[in-house]
Amino acid sequence: MSTVIFEPTGRRIEVEAGANLLDVCWAHHIPIESLCGGNGACGRCAVQVTEGEVPITAEQRAHFDEERLARGWRLACQTRVEHDLRVNVPAPAGSLKSHIITSGEAPKVHVAPAVRKHFLKLNDATLREPLSDSERIKRALPDGARLRFRPAALRKLPETLRQGRQHVTVTVWDNAVLDVEAGDATRHNYGIAFDIGTSTVAALLVDLNTGDELGVAAALNTQRKYGEDVISRISFCREHTDGVETLEREIAGLLSDLAAQVTAARGIDLSHVYEYVAVGNTTMAHLVAGVDPSPLGEMPYAPVFTACHTMLDGPKGAQLGHRPFELPAAIGAYVGSDALTAVVALELHTKPGTRLFYDIGTNAEIIAGGPDRMLAASAAAGPAFEGVKIECGMIGVAGAIDTCTLRDGDLAFTTIGDAEPVGICGSGLVDIAAVLLDLGVIDPSGRLLPRDACPDTVPPKIRARLHEAKGTTRIALAEDVYLSQRDVRELQNAKAAIAAGVDILLHHLGVTPDQLDEVLVGGAFGSTLNPRSAQRIGVIPAVKLDKVRAVGNTALQGAKAYLLSTDLRREICAAREHIELHELSTEPDFTDRFAAHMPFAVG
Amino acid sequence: MSTVIFEPTGRRIEVEAGANLLDVCWAHHIPIESLCGGNGACGRCAVQVTEGEVPITAEQRAHFDEERLARGWRLACQTRVEHDLRVNVPAPAGSLKSHIITSGEAPKVHVAPAVRKHFLKLNDATLREPLSDSERIKRALPDGARLRFRPAALRKLPETLRQGRQHVTVTVWDNAVLDVEAGDATRHNYGIAFDIGTSTVAALLVDLNTGDELGVAAALNTQRKYGEDVISRISFCREHTDGVETLEREIAGLLSDLAAQVTAARGIDLSHVYEYVAVGNTTMAHLVAGVDPSPLGEMPYAPVFTACHTMLDGPKGAQLGHRPFELPAAIGAYVGSDALTAVVALELHTKPGTRLFYDIGTNAEIIAGGPDRMLAASAAAGPAFEGVKIECGMIGVAGAIDTCTLRDGDLAFTTIGDAEPVGICGSGLVDIAAVLLDLGVIDPSGRLLPRDACPDTVPPKIRARLHEAKGTTRIALAEDVYLSQRDVRELQNAKAAIAAGVDILLHHLGVTPDQLDEVLVGGAFGSTLNPRSAQRIGVIPAVKLDKVRAVGNTALQGAKAYLLSTDLRREICAAREHIELHELSTEPDFTDRFAAHMPFAVG
Repeated sequence: MSTVIFEPTGRRIEVEAGANLLDVCWAHHIPIESLCGGNGACGRCAVQVTEGEVPITAEQRAHFDEERLARGWRLACQTRVEHDLRVNVPAPAGSLKSHIITSGEAPKVHVAPAVRKHFLKLNDATLREPLSDSERIKRALPDGARLRFRPAALRKLPETLRQGRQHVTVTVWDNAVLDVEAGDATRHNYGIAFDIGTSTVAALLVDLNTGDELGVAAALNTQRKYGEDVISRISFCREHTDGVETLEREIAGLLSDLAAQVTAARGIDLSHVYEYVAVGNTTMAHLVAGVDPSPLGEMPYAPVFTACHTMLDGPKGAQLGHRPFELPAAIGAYVGSDALTAVVALELHTKPGTRLFYDIGTNAEIIAGGPDRMLAASAAAGPAFEGVKIECGMIGVAGAIDTCTLRDGDLAFTTIGDAEPVGICGSGLVDIAAVLLDLGVIDPSGRLLPRDACPDTVPPKIRARLHEAKGTTRIALAEDVYLSQRDVRELQNAKAAIAAGVDILLHHLGVTPDQLDEVLVGGAFGSTLNPRSAQRIGVIPAVKLDKVRAVGNTALQGAKAYLLSTDLRREICAAREHIELHELSTEPDFTDRFAAHMPFAVG
Repeated sequence: MSTVIFEPTGRRIEVEAGANLLDVCWAHHIPIESLCGGNGACGRCAVQVTEGEVPITAEQRAHFDEERLARGWRLACQTRVEHDLRVNVPAPAGSLKSHIITSGEAPKVHVAPAVRKHFLKLNDATLREPLSDSERIKRALPDGARLRFRPAALRKLPETLRQGRQHVTVTVWDNAVLDVEAGDATRHNYGIAFDIGTSTVAALLVDLNTGDELGVAAALNTQRKYGEDVISRISFCREHTDGVETLEREIAGLLSDLAAQVTAARGIDLSHVYEYVAVGNTTMAHLVAGVDPSPLGEMPYAPVFTACHTMLDGPKGAQLGHRPFELPAAIGAYVGSDALTAVVALELHTKPGTRLFYDIGTNAEIIAGGPDRMLAASAAAGPAFEGVKIECGMIGVAGAIDTCTLRDGDLAFTTIGDAEPVGICGSGLVDIAAVLLDLGVIDPSGRLLPRDACPDTVPPKIRARLHEAKGTTRIALAEDVYLSQRDVRELQNAKAAIAAGVDILLHHLGVTPDQLDEVLVGGAFGSTLNPRSAQRIGVIPAVKLDKVRAVGNTALQGAKAYLLSTDLRREICAAREHIELHELSTEPDFTDRFAAHMPFAVG
C-alpha cells in the first residue's frame, strides 16, 4: 500500500501499489477533469506531483515539455502509484478559480499604460540618406529621441523590417523599445497583474489597450510545502543555505504556469504580454525578487526593500518572456504592496471621510483614516482566519465549510463548491464561533463547554455534537471535521490582535468606531464573511452593520490599475509617503488592549 | 605528417604525427613563452587551437576552465599534434601588445564618470523607524530618491549589510545601484575601454576614480577565421543561418579574455569593473550587439542602428560580470563610433582651424573640417593598408616589414619586433612602393617593371631582386617575402579611393589641401607610417610635411574619455549631430576623381 496525499484538500488516501492515479481520484470523488475517459488523449487530468517519484514515460512526454516534467507535472491517467506521493490536483475549470477571489472594487482609471504599441509605415532608407533602421523608427515616434532599444528588440529589427516590408509595430515601455513585430500588431497588447498571497496566487490578464479583464487564473502557492505562513517560510530561509533560491524558484515556476494558463485560455501568445505587476505581502515580494527575507523575521523587522522594484528581465528562472516585472512599493515589513494598491483601489487617499480597511489573510493588515491622515498597522493575528493552524482548518477551496447558521435546532453549513465538507475555512470558523457564542456553547472566556456544562437552552442536536477527545472538548461538524477548544483559543488570539490593532489606530486617529464612515473588508475572507458574525466575535468594531462592506480582491484590482495607468503609479507613490506605519509591538498599551480583547462580548 | 598553421603569422609547418607542440614552436623559432621548460607547470605556453582537434586531458583541465577549453585553449607543452591544426600563439608579454597601438592623443577630461562609489556608515534600523535597507541607503546618498536597485545588488544587500555591520559601499551607475559591498571599497572602481577593430582588439583598463590608465591588453580579432575584412564577415552572416551568433560568440569570448587578462595583470577583481565602452566600425558594433550586419552589405547600406546602444547586462555570452556595456553612437554604416570618439579625442569639433583626419584600418574613414562644419566619408579602400589581400601581406605584428629605405644601393627593411621578416604590413607596403617609385622600378602608371625594362639608374642589387613568377613581375624582399604587380594594383586602388574621398570632402568644404591646418593620421597604420612615403604614393594630399602628424589610437583614447566623463558623452552626441556624412558612391564625380588618382605622381 502507498499513501497519496491530495492537495489542496490534504486528503490522505491509501492505495494499492500499481493503482492508476485517475482511477483513485474517481473512486474517492476527488474533483479532476477528464474528457477522454483516461486514455491519455485529452490532457485534462494534468496533476503536479510535488513529493515522490513518478517516472517520465513517453506518454507523459507527449503532453509536457521538459520544464514542466521537471516540476512534476504528469497526466493522472498515465500515472501508476508505486510509492507514497503528494499530488496537487488543479481544480476543474471554474472551481478553484471561482473560490480564489480576484474581483473587487476598483478605481476609475484613465487607460494610459506604460506599454504602448505603435504601428509605423517607414520609408525605405535611401542611398542619399541612409538612416539606420533604429533612427527611422525613433523619428517616426512621438518623443522618439529619448528611446533606447532593448538588446533583444534590436537583434530582431533587421529581419522584422524585411518581413514587414518596412511596416513595423514597435512596443515602447517607459523609454525602452521592448519589441518590434512585422506588420500591424498593435491590438495585441497585454499585461498581467499577480496577487501573490502566502496561500494563493492569482493572475489577471489585462488588455492594455482597452483596460478589459481577459481572464483569471489562480492556484495555491506552491511554496506552501516549505511552510504555511510567512514566518515559517522566513525560518526556512534562515535554516537552509539554498532556502531563498528554493522559494524563489517555486514562485517563479508558479507565476510562469499561471501566465501560461491565463494567456493560453484566450489564445494569446505570451510574447504579447509586455509588463507584469505583482503585489503581495513584503515577504512574498522579497522572495519573488530573490532577496533573503530573514531580516523580516528578527528585530527590528526592517525589510531589505520597500520601494518599487523593477526587474527588467523578470524574476530569475521565470518563463515570462524576459519582460519588465514590477513590484510596487510596500508600506512596511508586514504591510505589503497589496495593502498599498488596495488603498488606491478603494480611493481611501482621496475619498472624503474616515474609513477602516482590513485585509485579513495570513496576517491582518489594517488601514484607518482618509485623505487627511492615514495610518497602517499589521496585526500578528496568525493564520487562523485563513483556516491555517485550525485542527480541521483549510484554505477557502472546494469542500471548505464557509458558512454556518442555526437551523431546525442544529448547525447548518454550506461548503465551497457545494462539495462534501472536508474542513473549515476562515469565514466558516467565524460563523461557527458566532453561532456557538450566541448559543452559549462557547462562553465569553472562550471556553468550549463540555456537553454536560452547556446551558439547557442548547438544542439537543447540537449538544450531541459535543464530545471529548484527546483530553479536550470538540464539536463535531461533519465526518472527520470538528472544532476544538484549541481552535477557539487560536481564534481568540487572532481576533484580539486585530481588535487591539484597530483600537490603537483609531485612538491615534482620534476617532471612535461609530465615527467611521465605512468598514471595508478585503480579500477572500472578506468576501464570504458574515459581517454580523465577525462583529459577534469581535473582529469588527461596534459600527452599524450597513457600514460594513466586503470589497473583494482590492490588491489585485489595484495591481491592475497600476498596470493601466502611469499617473496612478505616481499617485500610489505619493499615497505611500502619506501613510503612517505603526508598529503595534512598540505601542505601550498594546499588551493591555490585546488582553482586554481576548474574551468575547457577553451575548 | 600533419600541417600546423601558426597564427598570427600564418606560418605553415609540416610536423610528424605525435610531435609535441611546444617543441615544434621552439624548433621553428615561433615566439612562445614557457617558464617551466615544458612540463605543464607554469601555464605560460597557452595557445588557442582554432581548427582541428586536440583532446582535453587531465593536464589541460588542470589549467583551463570548461569555457576556455571549449574555445580551444590548450597548453602547447601538453599537446601532441595528431591532425592538421591551426593554432593561435599569443605573443609573449609585451610583444603583440606593443605592436597594437593603444596610446594616442587624448582630450583633457574632467573625471566625472557614470560610475560612482559611495561609502556609507548607516544607522541601524530601529523598531520605532524600521526603514528598509534600501531606503536607508537612498536617504544617505546624494539624489538618492531617484535610484533603483539592480536585482543582483538587491539580492546581495542583506548579507552585505550584515557582514559590513551597516558599513557599505554602494556603486551607482546612472540611476541604478549596480552593486553593494561590505566596508569601504570605494577605491576599487574600474572601467574598460575596448577598441574593436576588424583585425585587432584592444582593451584599456581605466581607474574611474583617478582617470589613470592601469593597463592594456590586445589580441588579434578571432573573428578573422570567418573572414579578414568586414565585407567577408557580413557575407558570412548572410550565408550562414548561425553566422551572426557565431561571430557574436567569438567577439564575446575575446572581450572576456582581454578583460580577464588586463585585470589579472593588476590583481584587480573583474567584479570591480563597472562599465565597459566599446568603439569600433559599425559592423563590429552590430556583431557585438548580436545584430545582423547584412543590411550594411547591400544598397542602400543603412545600418540597423547608429545611436548609442547600452546593453545593461553586457554582450550575450560574455563573461564581463553582467555590467553595463556601452556602444557609443556611430556616424554611419562605414564611419563607426571609433571615428566619432576620435573626433572628440582630437577635439576637432572645438579646436579652431580646418583639419583632415584619416583612420586607415581595413577601411578608410576620413573626417574633414572643424568646429563650424565637419564632413565625414568612408573610402572603400579595401584592406591593402592593413596588409590584407597583399600576396605577402600581414597585419602589423612581429615579423612584419614596417619600414623600407634605400641604403647602400639596396632596399633596407625594419620589422616589427626586429623579428625575421615574414611579411609586409601597411606602412611597409607604402614605404616599399615609395622607394620603388622614386627609383622608377614602379612607373607612374603603376607598372612594376621587369628587370630588363628598369631604368639604368636602378642599383644592381635592387635589379637583382626583380624576377618573374606565375606570369607576373615580383620583387623579392626577403626569403619567401615579395611584392607583386598585383599588390601594386591593390595599392593603387586603395590610395585612389582615399585620395578621391579626400578630394570630394575638401571640395564640399571649399578648401584646398594647402589651406589645411593639419593632417592627422590615426590608427596603427598612422603610427608607423612615413608621411613622406604616404605623400609620395598619393594617400596624403599636397600639404607641407610638418603639418602631418600620427595621432595614435584616438578611437581607444576617445572611448576612455567616454568612460570618464558623462559631460563628454553629451558632447559626443552633440558632435555627431553636427557631422555631415557623405556617401562617396553617390557623388557624381567620384568615379572621375577615382580614375584621376589611379596613377602615381611623376617622380
